[in-house]
Amino acid sequence: MSGLLLRGGMLIPMTSREAIGLGDILIQDGRIAAIYPGGAPEEVRSSVSEIRNVAGQLVLPGLVNAHTHAAMTLFRSFADDLPLMRWLKEAIWPAEEKLTGDDVYWGTKLAIAEMLKSGITTFADMYFFMDQVAQASLDTGIRAHLSRGMVGFGPSAEKALTESAAFFRQYNGAGDGLTRVWLGPHAPYTCSPDYLKRVMALADELGTGLHIHLSETATEVDDMTKQYGLPPVELMDSIGLFERPVLAAHCVHLNEKERAILVEKGVGIAHNPVSNMKLASGVAPVEALRQAQAILALGTDGAASNNNLDLIEEMRQAALLQKVHLLDPLALPAYEALEMATIGGARALRWDDEIGTLEVGKRADLITINLQQPHLCPDHDPVSRLVYAAKGADVATVLVNGRILVDQGRLTCMDEEEVMAKATAAAYRLTRQ
Amino acid sequence: MSGLLLRGGMLIPMTSREAIGLGDILIQDGRIAAIYPGGAPEEVRSSVSEIRNVAGQLVLPGLVNAHTHAAMTLFRSFADDLPLMRWLKEAIWPAEEKLTGDDVYWGTKLAIAEMLKSGITTFADMYFFMDQVAQASLDTGIRAHLSRGMVGFGPSAEKALTESAAFFRQYNGAGDGLTRVWLGPHAPYTCSPDYLKRVMALADELGTGLHIHLSETATEVDDMTKQYGLPPVELMDSIGLFERPVLAAHCVHLNEKERAILVEKGVGIAHNPVSNMKLASGVAPVEALRQAQAILALGTDGAASNNNLDLIEEMRQAALLQKVHLLDPLALPAYEALEMATIGGARALRWDDEIGTLEVGKRADLITINLQQPHLCPDHDPVSRLVYAAKGADVATVLVNGRILVDQGRLTCMDEEEVMAKATAAAYRLTRQ
Repeated sequence: MSGLLLRGGMLIPMTSREAIGLGDILIQDGRIAAIYPGGAPEEVRSSVSEIRNVAGQLVLPGLVNAHTHAAMTLFRSFADDLPLMRWLKEAIWPAEEKLTGDDVYWGTKLAIAEMLKSGITTFADMYFFMDQVAQASLDTGIRAHLSRGMVGFGPSAEKALTESAAFFRQYNGAGDGLTRVWLGPHAPYTCSPDYLKRVMALADELGTGLHIHLSETATEVDDMTKQYGLPPVELMDSIGLFERPVLAAHCVHLNEKERAILVEKGVGIAHNPVSNMKLASGVAPVEALRQAQAILALGTDGAASNNNLDLIEEMRQAALLQKVHLLDPLALPAYEALEMATIGGARALRWDDEIGTLEVGKRADLITINLQQPHLCPDHDPVSRLVYAAKGADVATVLVNGRILVDQGRLTCMDEEEVMAKATAAAYRLTRQ
Repeated sequence: MSGLLLRGGMLIPMTSREAIGLGDILIQDGRIAAIYPGGAPEEVRSSVSEIRNVAGQLVLPGLVNAHTHAAMTLFRSFADDLPLMRWLKEAIWPAEEKLTGDDVYWGTKLAIAEMLKSGITTFADMYFFMDQVAQASLDTGIRAHLSRGMVGFGPSAEKALTESAAFFRQYNGAGDGLTRVWLGPHAPYTCSPDYLKRVMALADELGTGLHIHLSETATEVDDMTKQYGLPPVELMDSIGLFERPVLAAHCVHLNEKERAILVEKGVGIAHNPVSNMKLASGVAPVEALRQAQAILALGTDGAASNNNLDLIEEMRQAALLQKVHLLDPLALPAYEALEMATIGGARALRWDDEIGTLEVGKRADLITINLQQPHLCPDHDPVSRLVYAAKGADVATVLVNGRILVDQGRLTCMDEEEVMAKATAAAYRLTRQ
């Protein structure tokens, strides 16, 4: 029997807390073919083509990075600790002006290297030169949810619509379904309601969804309220934006009505706690949204405002930030933070039919975490150790679509040295010339 | 010429921002013998007994964990996400009741394994069975600042005084100065002013300082104010506590007068951001204290409330938490967070004559960080990458007193597998029987 049996790991399927336990998992044809709590029977063990011993490791669904700008790794730790507008105007925007497709390819590949090594198997990206982002994803085998950033004013507004449609037609479903394309209207302050209506019409024509920044800063809320008489989420609801799949990044500043809208419309919310902290944007009402059954995911945002792409750290940060902000040690417990990073992300991307849990029939996107290390010892609660003590570097194995992309902590799908060299060269040209 | 030359690293001496740059560093007889910006001359290179190439690595002072309860690694991720009093009464205290000296030895050794591997070369510990903590420190070669926890009521109050004096006499200065002993009155709510006066007298008699928890929670401030008419720091000042070296852990809830007292009296403040977040204690006024030139250090607190002992994460957390709390992206910049983890810690422990910076004549407590990794690429600002993107696992080399305790990420000073096995056995006995 062809197939890979992962044997003896502590399975965290993310279907329920009760399902956590030792067991084996069988992978065939890129999918989870069987799960054996307690261990596979002898006939499976003796007939399967490959067995890997993962005793002393956690086995869980691959992590979903629900909001990032991958190629911004090129600007990691370039011009930190500056006021936002100086940072953008004097550092980031002039450097982005010079970006080429080649830069984006290598910056994205660098991000994919980092993401895979820290257990991210799916990422939702919004940036420029998205053909290159798709190519970098397909070249490495990571699962990608891609949106070309669209700004609704100036000469590029029209181009954004036509290029997005072309990008969708070329890449949606590419790589045997590894790549999906949504539209990426940047934000309410860069896309007017009239423009957004055109984006919505295009999305409906293509049968796809929208990835948008919403209510990231208090300034945005003030500006939108002054300009349109409604805060961002209410404004989006008033034009019918949420009548199709929407992935909304940030959602930091929400009134009660807006929280109810996001829940009722099933909007996927990508919470980015580290970025919100570093840029001093504020604290999103994650615990309130969770209790209202919102669809909550986690994102790293770009590496220029994070400055790494480690979703394990993001889980921990989400939990810690809610606790201290609400002065409630029970806010956002570990298991719920892990849900955000796995099945929550899958739901937010409307991809939960294929990924987000360990269940028979789903795509074999899964990771293992090496627990045999001093900082994860002794072996009390596995979920708590993962969320509160582990790091990206503890990821041992990463599979996407059943293919091993990280093996014993090493990338099998790209030349890491080459990627770092090319990305460094691009970063130099963009920022020092 | 005997000695070790670390060659080609990016030196971050923590004496000034301007001193950061490529260079070599010569270690002889446990001390920093010379620093060569740009590189050592040929006669040094040809005559020194050992050269290590650290190109592509940061070289910086070892990190100082200014507040922890090391052996609480045994309770890492045991009973998380509970209300504080249930956590203490139903989980931690019953388990601690059963603690033996042997448990503390292995729990501490586990903590030392984790701390060394993540770049901590000095730790300030307050716990029980401190002889065993001292022994674990001496057996591994880490620098230790040790205080026996003293509670000023019940039958153990007298014993705490006599045992602390005996502990001081036996271990202060042990291991060629690697170990220093201070007294450890637990907190104002567990030690009355009268008891504290006896502790102060003993400290003065021994010529040592005090390590104490101060103003960790709002409840403590309320209780002390009700009981004594003064909040904790004012109360401590009123009895003259600060007229000798004091290391004060937490200092979360401070009024303006208390902030001024801490600055004026030169109290070392150990900020524990992750613990304060996880336990929902609150946000310490670190940025205000920094601007008032307070002596600021960083601690991990115990692994039961963290749940790791990673001071790099603690630096990042300190910076991020101040930014989002004050809604100011300029609060606590990266370099200042790194100061807290190095020279700030050394000053708080009154050990800055020997450690905390890379300077000729100081003890060779230093670490290197491997920058050649996707999550630290490209090579923009080294301090920003260290604070905002690096992890404990990026530490490559750790020297204490010139002795290599971690080499290419591996412990040279203990059997890691044995430590994890012994600590696990202890944890099982304490929590599951």
